[in-house]
Amino acid sequence: MRREGLSGNRRIRIGLVTSNKNKVDEILSIISGSPLEIYWLNIEKLEIQSSSLEEISLYAARHAFEIARKPLVVDDSGLFVEALNGFPGPYSSYVYKTLGIKGILKLLENEGNRRACFRTSAALILPPLEKVFTGETCGTITYSPRGSGGFGFDPIFVPDGENRTYAEMSVEEKNIISHRGKAFKALTDYVEGLLL
Amino acid sequence: MRREGLSGNRRIRIGLVTSNKNKVDEILSIISGSPLEIYWLNIEKLEIQSSSLEEISLYAARHAFEIARKPLVVDDSGLFVEALNGFPGPYSSYVYKTLGIKGILKLLENEGNRRACFRTSAALILPPLEKVFTGETCGTITYSPRGSGGFGFDPIFVPDGENRTYAEMSVEEKNIISHRGKAFKALTDYVEGLLL
Repeated sequence: MRREGLSGNRRIRIGLVTSNKNKVDEILSIISGSPLEIYWLNIEKLEIQSSSLEEISLYAARHAFEIARKPLVVDDSGLFVEALNGFPGPYSSYVYKTLGIKGILKLLENEGNRRACFRTSAALILPPLEKVFTGETCGTITYSPRGSGGFGFDPIFVPDGENRTYAEMSVEEKNIISHRGKAFKALTDYVEGLLL
Repeated sequence: MRREGLSGNRRIRIGLVTSNKNKVDEILSIISGSPLEIYWLNIEKLEIQSSSLEEISLYAARHAFEIARKPLVVDDSGLFVEALNGFPGPYSSYVYKTLGIKGILKLLENEGNRRACFRTSAALILPPLEKVFTGETCGTITYSPRGSGGFGFDPIFVPDGENRTYAEMSVEEKNIISHRGKAFKALTDYVEGLLL
């Protein structure tokens, strides 16, 4: 029976397509204990220009699947700063590399509105299924960087209900409340549901 | 004979794939008098994320050709500011929409190095030919916007050898010295060469 066939000790192996090794470590920590087994699928991640993370992650997942023909997930994340009309958004990685944290703080100089949200979209292709999971964590941008954990803009982002920046938390602490943690938790729950 | 067949009154019709109508007008002015006939090919322009304009324009042209199956050109342009490590580069359009001119000037506040270059890549698909043409115009970023012509960051860019910003010039004046003008001049010369 299908129910028996999918349950028990069965694990589902899914390749994570990313060029950022830090993400693999974060995600392995998020999914530990679940029937999901994630491994680093080191193939080209094609990212389109779009203001929608969902669109970017889904296009990349379909493109990667054309190459790999294996179950896989592609996630895309961004920091959306309210006073900057959502900038840097989907281009957070490029902006981090060019302007850096200094650039974001400069753009927010004399700006009272420090609201920002980190968002992740994770597009799963598990044939014949195709599904996008999202996670969002909102908070505020600090006036100077704090902490050395995480990556990217983590040192200037304090999630709501916290006093510490993402970069001042351990990977495990960050995963519980983070945008990426929420998206991959939803994905894990979904895959677990398939196994029931 | 081939020579006769392609010369004379023959014109080559090429579709321009763009979502920016301003570009069509600029380009029509650049190619006027040439055997090239450009018309607006209003189909999806798929842009990938890349730091290379050549890569973006060529990918977009190949994608558009898959849909249209007609000779076409896709161009991509960007403003590369030296003190900002090339930002906003290929994402100039997104940055213009979110941060605007104000954002670029803010990032360059107290910055002595005002060097910047505008670049265009124009990818032509004229089966069986496929070729990318580039144009570059360097200059300086002003301390405040001037002029109402052009579009995007034109009001804060003064090309070398000029006192006026792109936005203070007529379309014809701008085309003679502009990055886009140079790229499409090269493209036009190339197509004319095919007809000789």
